Amino acid sequence: MATVPLIDHANASPAVRAVYDDIKQLRGVADVNNFWKSLANAPAQLEQVWSEVKSVMQPGELDALTKELVYIAVSAANSCTYCVHSHTAAARAKGMTPAQHAELLAVIALANRTNALANSLQVPVDPQFQAG
Amino acid sequence: MATVPLIDHANASPAVRAVYDDIKQLRGVADVNNFWKSLANAPAQLEQVWSEVKSVMQPGELDALTKELVYIAVSAANSCTYCVHSHTAAARAKGMTPAQHAELLAVIALANRTNALANSLQVPVDPQFQAG
Amino acid sequence: MATVPLIDHANASPAVRAVYDDIKQLRGVADVNNFWKSLANAPAQLEQVWSEVKSVMQPGELDALTKELVYIAVSAANSCTYCVHSHTAAARAKGMTPAQHAELLAVIALANRTNALANSLQVPVDPQFQAG
Amino acid sequence: MATVPLIDHANASPAVRAVYDDIKQLRGVADVNNFWKSLANAPAQLEQVWSEVKSVMQPGELDALTKELVYIAVSAANSCTYCVHSHTAAARAKGMTPAQHAELLAVIALANRTNALANSLQVPVDPQFQAG
Amino acid sequence: MATVPLIDHANASPAVRAVYDDIKQLRGVADVNNFWKSLANAPAQLEQVWSEVKSVMQPGELDALTKELVYIAVSAANSCTYCVHSHTAAARAKGMTPAQHAELLAVIALANRTNALANSLQVPVDPQFQAG
Amino acid sequence: MATVPLIDHANASPAVRAVYDDIKQLRGVADVNNFWKSLANAPAQLEQVWSEVKSVMQPGELDALTKELVYIAVSAANSCTYCVHSHTAAARAKGMTPAQHAELLAVIALANRTNALANSLQVPVDPQFQAG
Repeated sequence: MATVPLIDHANASPAVRAVYDDIKQLRGVADVNNFWKSLANAPAQLEQVWSEVKSVMQPGELDALTKELVYIAVSAANSCTYCVHSHTAAARAKGMTPAQHAELLAVIALANRTNALANSLQVPVDPQFQAG
Repeated sequence: MATVPLIDHANASPAVRAVYDDIKQLRGVADVNNFWKSLANAPAQLEQVWSEVKSVMQPGELDALTKELVYIAVSAANSCTYCVHSHTAAARAKGMTPAQHAELLAVIALANRTNALANSLQVPVDPQFQAG
Repeated sequence: MATVPLIDHANASPAVRAVYDDIKQLRGVADVNNFWKSLANAPAQLEQVWSEVKSVMQPGELDALTKELVYIAVSAANSCTYCVHSHTAAARAKGMTPAQHAELLAVIALANRTNALANSLQVPVDPQFQAG
Repeated sequence: MATVPLIDHANASPAVRAVYDDIKQLRGVADVNNFWKSLANAPAQLEQVWSEVKSVMQPGELDALTKELVYIAVSAANSCTYCVHSHTAAARAKGMTPAQHAELLAVIALANRTNALANSLQVPVDPQFQAG
Repeated sequence: MATVPLIDHANASPAVRAVYDDIKQLRGVADVNNFWKSLANAPAQLEQVWSEVKSVMQPGELDALTKELVYIAVSAANSCTYCVHSHTAAARAKGMTPAQHAELLAVIALANRTNALANSLQVPVDPQFQAG
Repeated sequence: MATVPLIDHANASPAVRAVYDDIKQLRGVADVNNFWKSLANAPAQLEQVWSEVKSVMQPGELDALTKELVYIAVSAANSCTYCVHSHTAAARAKGMTPAQHAELLAVIALANRTNALANSLQVPVDPQFQAG
């Protein structure tokens, strides 16, 4: 369970309800998920995070699905149970096929493997990589 | 510096040289980078990792650049200095523009932020996310 | 569930019971929590950790609540489910208000965000920061 | 070195210069540090992060030094070299004494120790911690 | 629950069944565990991981139990709930006694403590450690 | 560089010198390494860590080399540059051969790979693993 109460729409302040309504409308869902209901205990944070999500996850130079794939990979590396679940669902909602998911898993597996090897070997950065 | 000697082509065993030559040919480079020169101290691991890289990083259900973007994000989350450098370079070699890099950074920033919040709040996974 | 049996007071060795009794007395609780019941499988570790907790978490140059706030933040970064729960409870027991918790979450969110950006950008340390 | 060019004030766009000038004025420094010069490659991110820093790191329900102590602890857990350096310096600028730093290190040491033990033992969360 | 369906032997493709049968035979178990049933959604990954497990976890220059102890320690550091459970069980199956487990926990506790201190202090690597 | 001054024997307090002398004598070295010189800024922590190292790293139910191998693996997972260097050197001093190092790297690579996969798939813990 969360370390804070989950705040339902019925029990939320007007400011929080406004954010919930925006989420529900934009995502076409009947209720917001537990992340938002938990974050509502910190209303300023709730507003900022929702604003950032709306802005950052839009298709742009990278398409929306690519962004969710990155999100899954980071969430797994950070061992965030909730985020892996919610963003895998989001990726599927944005069109991720099982075959794409399998390829993502292969990249995640390889990246974590080579990260661990590079950290274990303390590989020095080559000069050609150092020109930022 | 590495915790192992960096093994140059001239000092490598035939098996290691074979891997180096394959890397150089496939990537069109004059010399392999320090990750491979370090990993050459574990020749079986060198062969397996190179084989996996060749196979996994090919364009497939996901394109090659998308895979490098995921790789950068995982490497940053794992705080792998070498890997962030080498895969940012690889992503640029595969066409990543500064605008795409900026958007990737925005997703990385947001994902790490919400991962930390979800972990701090211990958000319970919603039922609709639990049907695997 | 734990990877070891949870050892109750009734089933504990005299040495372990001594630690349990000290914890119960100092904290004014009827029973020790699951962390101690798990750690009791390694009695030397149980004694050392309890001793360190008693010593380190005392108010000193930093007050007791500040120390719990740091503890929550570290536990979230390390994705330790148990520790986030237990130390959020401890912080509340030491006076943390919901408003303080919200501010802590804001710092945690910001720190994880900028850590991820700095790791992704591989920012070189400025000279003025290098004089230890 | 960074994976992006460091952008000096002289070479910055007007929008970026505006952020730099604000940082310099608020912090009373002659030049911005390398984190900002790196982040300037993603101007929207630069503006958002600076805005968030200004807002979050203000003294409020928690004082400014407490916030920096949390920031150091998170940065160490995330193995962010740059951030540990810059926020240790910031904490000193906000009055952190060597004795306070030593106490912070003691809490960091203890927290990482018990996080690792709890993760190794997979301690189940006690019922009394589950009422959020 | 998993983010993918768990694939039972009865519902598996011939290729997946072949891997399952090999696991069951080599490990002397009636059914494969949930890790394999989850990974079966990415059949190529399933084959590669099983092949690597068979090869790497064999006794060699290091004995089989030592390898499981390392595996537990890494899994705890990566906060992988599943892996800590499965590899603690595997270590016990390979002869790990409670006394050995307690000593492993002591090393894990110490290592995470000093890692955190070294990261907080940003200790520079001594010259004598730099000759790889 | 460190975020604290490195304290040499000549400039150390009597209490710190006592620890330095014990380290030098037990390890047969002419000078202590930078970790101890950094930690000396927190003298109580220096004494406790040295005491714990002396006690925990002794051969016991696990031999001394096994403990160093675990230490390397944890340090790599925690991306602790200093610790990977110092403990790889320590392992070599305790007899680790290049062939053993290569096998350790293979286990590290595999463990980080499967940890990442298990975290990405959110594999549910099997009942047979839940009896602690």
